[in-house]
Amino acid sequence: MIGEFELIAKIASMSKASAAVNRGLAVGIGDDAAVIRSESGDYSVITTDMLVEGVHFDLQYFTFYEIGWRAVAANLSDVAAMGGKPIYIVVAIAIPQKVEAVNIEALYAGMNALCKQFDVVIIGGDTTFSLGGLTVSITALGTVLPEHLKKRSAAMVGDSILLTGTPGDSKAGLQALRSQDGQLIKACASAVRKHLTPLPRVAESAFLVSSFPLNAMIDVSDGVASELNHICKQSKVGAVIYQNKLPVSAQAKIVAAELTQKSDDYFLNGGEDFELLFTAPKTRANDICLQFSQRFELEITEIGTILPAEQGIWLEHDNGQRTECAATGWNHFQ
Amino acid sequence: MIGEFELIAKIASMSKASAAVNRGLAVGIGDDAAVIRSESGDYSVITTDMLVEGVHFDLQYFTFYEIGWRAVAANLSDVAAMGGKPIYIVVAIAIPQKVEAVNIEALYAGMNALCKQFDVVIIGGDTTFSLGGLTVSITALGTVLPEHLKKRSAAMVGDSILLTGTPGDSKAGLQALRSQDGQLIKACASAVRKHLTPLPRVAESAFLVSSFPLNAMIDVSDGVASELNHICKQSKVGAVIYQNKLPVSAQAKIVAAELTQKSDDYFLNGGEDFELLFTAPKTRANDICLQFSQRFELEITEIGTILPAEQGIWLEHDNGQRTECAATGWNHFQ
Repeated sequence: MIGEFELIAKIASMSKASAAVNRGLAVGIGDDAAVIRSESGDYSVITTDMLVEGVHFDLQYFTFYEIGWRAVAANLSDVAAMGGKPIYIVVAIAIPQKVEAVNIEALYAGMNALCKQFDVVIIGGDTTFSLGGLTVSITALGTVLPEHLKKRSAAMVGDSILLTGTPGDSKAGLQALRSQDGQLIKACASAVRKHLTPLPRVAESAFLVSSFPLNAMIDVSDGVASELNHICKQSKVGAVIYQNKLPVSAQAKIVAAELTQKSDDYFLNGGEDFELLFTAPKTRANDICLQFSQRFELEITEIGTILPAEQGIWLEHDNGQRTECAATGWNHFQ
Repeated sequence: MIGEFELIAKIASMSKASAAVNRGLAVGIGDDAAVIRSESGDYSVITTDMLVEGVHFDLQYFTFYEIGWRAVAANLSDVAAMGGKPIYIVVAIAIPQKVEAVNIEALYAGMNALCKQFDVVIIGGDTTFSLGGLTVSITALGTVLPEHLKKRSAAMVGDSILLTGTPGDSKAGLQALRSQDGQLIKACASAVRKHLTPLPRVAESAFLVSSFPLNAMIDVSDGVASELNHICKQSKVGAVIYQNKLPVSAQAKIVAAELTQKSDDYFLNGGEDFELLFTAPKTRANDICLQFSQRFELEITEIGTILPAEQGIWLEHDNGQRTECAATGWNHFQ
């Protein structure tokens, strides 16, 4: 079976010839979103994200409201990862026979609830029948100021690697839900909430890009290791991150301990966290962390440093040993 | 089971409150595409269309190349129906295990081939795994000059009802394919081609909106009867169309005769034709038909007249009798 990243590379190369001749494109295939430059110089951001039943969500754990919420969150997160502001979405849904009108209303209520938080409007869509599971495909459209646009490819050697929140929580929440252990689910309510109704970092991104000279940025939808590899590959740099600095939440540790799994593994390879991973000049790292924590109920953690490409991409353990930080990620095709 | 039109109405009403307050929206939910007005006064067109295996296509008849082509065609047709020019698309695909990388390359080759014809660029996407069938969800983005924008809601009493091409061909092609009658398929190659690789009327729309004072316009993706009902409902008018004027192709008649079906039924309720149905002042109808046929290898036919709402929506038969022209259409939810 072909992997998602391999496929994206193939698709990008097939579309390259036509994309290259198109001068209106500021960012094409291979980032969190595409960016279009209009004749008047405005930048539009466009991104699409599809949620498939049994792959991204399970009706056993998710209400329809939560599915709608999460589908919107994934798209708004991609716009935020470019430094942009989401404004509109269009929604295509394939609906299986088992799904009732009242379920679709709940799905839309979830979408509308999150849209409302960020002043985003649903402006169109397509509804069709599905012979398989429920599929929700959303495209978000937004704007970004040229000076705020953040690409994956802009990391500089010496940059600090910074991260909002505590990635791995979404995976921990999922594992708790799957365990069907009521007590564990209750004890890890916040991680469960991050899996079911994650909040995209739209306001946080707006603050960061307007206040600090960030270089590269990406959202953590495929696990931190995978996303760090994307930044390194596209920026042609290496990186080291430190195990003892990884912001793993107490709840992720509880779930991992209970299920004899590794919370670092949730963090590195969990996916669907919608936190922001970014790089910035090391001299500004402390200031970014401080000012951010004063403004949001959320921490930014400095987890490592960008290295020259030839030095590779590493996870440095507590004992000083380094292991390769591979992009095992969250691959739908495995 | 809830119907698609009922669901769209419900969704539109749920999103209305937020959409109404948004002043950047020139056309919202309920037309072929949404239209956004930028601060500089430019209009952007956005539309999304999802193709689902077993609902919109069958791998028994469709190659992957053709699926890609048709998914793009459906979206470009929606932009054309607004009087717009498509420029970019983003593509989300859910891929079942049975599908190989080479199939996805063929799908993209089909998308790229049609995109190239209209100078459209694929700028992004999402690929994921499907536990059910193959699903392709495309969003197209384009522009429209404010003076060229055509809505469903602008038909005027007394307008001629005009139509490009010969709707019903796509359904005839599908029926021929389903019959597995090699001779019939060969005899109706053009109808079959319209089902598998339809051409959206992008150039035709551009010519029409820039040359004539059209009023309402829509594309025929759900059957002529259904689309005429959309125009009438949204324009608050009635209509009469004449059976002896319906441009039913010779191939549609051959297929219908062979399968003891009705070619008028293909025309009225077939769907997926991607022709343009529009209204214009009656004084201009002849001129439109003439100039169009001089420019394109395609005919425009005047099939009827817009009436006051209270007169209803009718099909007038050869014997002068009128029957209600109901929107039975192509309803995925039946």
